[in-house]
Amino acid sequence: VREALGVAGCVHQVFATPNALRRHEDLASQLRAGSFSLSLCDDAALASLAASVSPQGIVAVCGFLDRALADALVDDAKLVAVAAHVRDPGNLGALIRCADAAGADAVVLAGSSVDPYNDKVVRASVGSLFHLPLVLGTAMAATLDALHAKQFNVVAAVGSAPETIDQVAAADAIGDRVAWVFGNEAWGLGAADRALCDREIAVPIYGRAESLNVATAAAVCLYTTAWAQRRR
Amino acid sequence: VREALGVAGCVHQVFATPNALRRHEDLASQLRAGSFSLSLCDDAALASLAASVSPQGIVAVCGFLDRALADALVDDAKLVAVAAHVRDPGNLGALIRCADAAGADAVVLAGSSVDPYNDKVVRASVGSLFHLPLVLGTAMAATLDALHAKQFNVVAAVGSAPETIDQVAAADAIGDRVAWVFGNEAWGLGAADRALCDREIAVPIYGRAESLNVATAAAVCLYTTAWAQRRR
Repeated sequence: VREALGVAGCVHQVFATPNALRRHEDLASQLRAGSFSLSLCDDAALASLAASVSPQGIVAVCGFLDRALADALVDDAKLVAVAAHVRDPGNLGALIRCADAAGADAVVLAGSSVDPYNDKVVRASVGSLFHLPLVLGTAMAATLDALHAKQFNVVAAVGSAPETIDQVAAADAIGDRVAWVFGNEAWGLGAADRALCDREIAVPIYGRAESLNVATAAAVCLYTTAWAQRRR
Repeated sequence: VREALGVAGCVHQVFATPNALRRHEDLASQLRAGSFSLSLCDDAALASLAASVSPQGIVAVCGFLDRALADALVDDAKLVAVAAHVRDPGNLGALIRCADAAGADAVVLAGSSVDPYNDKVVRASVGSLFHLPLVLGTAMAATLDALHAKQFNVVAAVGSAPETIDQVAAADAIGDRVAWVFGNEAWGLGAADRALCDREIAVPIYGRAESLNVATAAAVCLYTTAWAQRRR
C-alpha cells in the first residue's frame, strides 16, 4: 500500500483495521490526507478482502498500472525484462522484484504470461510492481517488433545456448540496449519465439541441476548486463 | 525419484501407479532392477502419499541425505552456500537448486532454517537435493568455526554492506574458498551472526526495490563468485 501511494492516482479506496492504522502511524497520516475514501473495518472483514493467510491489516483498491510500450520506455532506457509465457505468479512477482533491483527500465509481459494483477504476483513483487513501468504485451512478435523499433538488442535466455553470459560480459559484448526474454518455467522458449530474438545466451550450469528457476536465471542475466553497461 | 536413484542406497521403497510406469519406461526398468520393494497402487492411494496437487505417479521413500560438514567438504572445495535461518521451504529449495547450478560444493543449513526434508523444499529443489552434499548445521557459531577450520572465507550477504559483489569481483578480491551466508527472508542476518563472518558484501540495488528474494540474491552471489574463481 505504501508503494501504491507513491504512484499518482493509483489508489482508489482503502480499507484498514484500527489496529493496523495504530501500528503504522506515518502511513495512517498519508491515508487520511489522501483524495480517496478510507474505510475502517474489523479483522474478519479485512481478512475476507485480503487473500493472504496473515493479512497486514490494510488493503488498497488500485487502478491498473500497465502502459503501452511506446510510453513506458524512456529515451535512454537500456535494460528491459520480457516475461514470455511465464505462468507461475510467484515466479513473475520475483522476476518483477529482481528487474526493479537490477535497475531495469521496464518489465514487459508477452504471450500467455500470468495476469500481473493476480494477488500472488502483487505480493511476490514486494512493491516492485509499483516501481517500474509495466507493459502488457500482446503477441510475442508485436512485442519484440516494438523493442526492435526502439533499437533494443533482443536476447533470449536459453539454457542450451553455446554462448554463456559470463563469456559475453568478459568480452564486453553485451549491447547498449538489451531486452532479455525469459521463457516459460516448464518448456522455456519455443522455436518460434526464439526465431524472433537476435541472440541466445545461457547461464552456464556447473553442477548437475538441469536448469535454473526463471527468477534466479533472470537475476544473473539482468545484473550481469547492468554491470557491463555501467562499466562503460 | 530419478535423481534419488542416483544416490547409492538412498531409495528404500517405491510406490507407483501402472500408468506412471508405462509413461516412464526407462525409469520403470531401473525401479524393477532396484534392491528395494516396488509397490503398485491406484491413483487415489498415490495421491494420498504425494503431497502435491498433481502428483506425477511415482513416490519414493528415501533415507536422509545430510552428512557431517567434515565429511561433506572435499579437499578442493571452493564454494559453499550457508542458509542461516531461511524459513520458507520454496526459498530453501530454490537456493539448493541454484547452489547446484552454480557448482557449489555443499549447502549447509544453520540456525533455525526450515527442515530440508519438508516436501516443498524437496519439490522446489527440482532434484538438486540429491546432487550436492547437504549439511544440517547446528548453531551458527559451530557451523562457521568448522568452515574457518577448512580455510573458508566466510562472507555474509548483507544488503546494506558498503562493499558490493561487482566491485569485489572487478578487483579480483574474492577468496579462493568462499562460504556465502544467506540470512532470513524477513530480517536478514542478525548482528550476532554477522559478527561471526569475516566480511560483508552486498548485491547492489539500482532501482527502488528494498531487497532481493534470498534465492535471487544467492544466484547473483554464487555465480559471480564461481566466475571469479574460475577465471584464475
